[in-house]
Amino acid sequence: MAQRKQVQRVNDNLSRDLSLERLRDQLREFAAARDWNQFHSPKNLAIALSVEAGELLEHFQWLSDEESLTLPDDKLEKIRDEIADVLLYLIRLADVLNVDLIKSADTKIEANAHKYPVDKARGSAKKYTEL
Amino acid sequence: MAQRKQVQRVNDNLSRDLSLERLRDQLREFAAARDWNQFHSPKNLAIALSVEAGELLEHFQWLSDEESLTLPDDKLEKIRDEIADVLLYLIRLADVLNVDLIKSADTKIEANAHKYPVDKARGSAKKYTEL
Amino acid sequence: MAQRKQVQRVNDNLSRDLSLERLRDQLREFAAARDWNQFHSPKNLAIALSVEAGELLEHFQWLSDEESLTLPDDKLEKIRDEIADVLLYLIRLADVLNVDLIKSADTKIEANAHKYPVDKARGSAKKYTEL
Amino acid sequence: MAQRKQVQRVNDNLSRDLSLERLRDQLREFAAARDWNQFHSPKNLAIALSVEAGELLEHFQWLSDEESLTLPDDKLEKIRDEIADVLLYLIRLADVLNVDLIKSADTKIEANAHKYPVDKARGSAKKYTEL
Repeated sequence: MAQRKQVQRVNDNLSRDLSLERLRDQLREFAAARDWNQFHSPKNLAIALSVEAGELLEHFQWLSDEESLTLPDDKLEKIRDEIADVLLYLIRLADVLNVDLIKSADTKIEANAHKYPVDKARGSAKKYTEL
Repeated sequence: MAQRKQVQRVNDNLSRDLSLERLRDQLREFAAARDWNQFHSPKNLAIALSVEAGELLEHFQWLSDEESLTLPDDKLEKIRDEIADVLLYLIRLADVLNVDLIKSADTKIEANAHKYPVDKARGSAKKYTEL
Repeated sequence: MAQRKQVQRVNDNLSRDLSLERLRDQLREFAAARDWNQFHSPKNLAIALSVEAGELLEHFQWLSDEESLTLPDDKLEKIRDEIADVLLYLIRLADVLNVDLIKSADTKIEANAHKYPVDKARGSAKKYTEL
Repeated sequence: MAQRKQVQRVNDNLSRDLSLERLRDQLREFAAARDWNQFHSPKNLAIALSVEAGELLEHFQWLSDEESLTLPDDKLEKIRDEIADVLLYLIRLADVLNVDLIKSADTKIEANAHKYPVDKARGSAKKYTEL
């Protein structure tokens, strides 16, 4: 009986994003321990996110599309590092704005499915406003 | 017995990030159905990510830090939308590069803890190279 | 007589932007000498411009507006360096696209004067679509 | 005699960038007339510059390098518009920081000539730190 309840509780949790919540909590503690909340306004975090996205992009600068698919290990390592930075600032920004990342992504995917119906968008890189 | 195994399997899963994996799979299907993989080179996805981070930042342009903390609902709605765009391109980029988002974030948080020890970093916005 | 003609010719030149043209020519030679035209597609130059704008922004990250007005000399030096990078890529991008920078800026200022009439825009940071 | 002096004065001016100075002055008046100096901190202008660079980049998103060289007229028109935005914010940022754009660009070109000597850099897109 207790075990059945446990299965139920655990199954409920499966639909939630436990790693993201854990990272969010770790970042909260990280900022609090360093008295960094004074710097973490949404505006400043949006700046930081954009700066990190630029650093990520820098690694692909001058590469051809093909080269960007077959990266040497040391370059991929640095890219992984920048991807992590973007994710961490995104989680932190969403947290201070009280935004649910997964729910927002679900809403967006659904909106995109309407904006880009398969028959119209197939093989086209056009913006939905131009389809 | 079967139930105990189920609890075990489910508990194992709890440490993984099921929502992110689900979104990754949905984005894979989305791109495949529209024949968009031809456009989704890592380079192009890094561009898209940076462009979306810029659109997100645009909403904070000219705001004071205080104003960025008390956003009107319609503005917050648009910001949520851009946050979702950034997350979706980040998930897609990580997927085509075969990068584990959560693992990378864990590695980065650990590195940051070394770069920014509490006693040195407290109350300071300086870069670790300047601490 | 010859002198009068010289004055005339020189005065004509005054309305043109000689330093920008000189820089454009220097950048052309710089790229040609290094066989870099193969990398300088408009797309790649737009990426480079955006990356440099991000590096410029990084210097203002975490600063208050007031602090950004009273920068220490070493920081200002680095910012000057990034400003130069943005200008150089902008000149190069305009060149490969055959865009006249000054003419485009003149057109834009005129358009902005219409979008932001003094009486409506005074003291407001709103976008023209919201005025 | 007076004419010779005029020739001298005019020749001196030739080394300066009159269009950039004119644009700088127009932007000063534009901001003052609208009481916008309160928003034009270096930090906010750096944000605006980065946002515009992102909007410029958006037009090249998903294009191949070849396509970015043969843009249709309506797309080129929009790109010209974004290039102008970047230039205007760059001029304004340099003005509030008291930075001389042309002098900074000259310094940078000279530094780049040292970082990227012709014999080492020819045909390579590597960063100078990797040459």
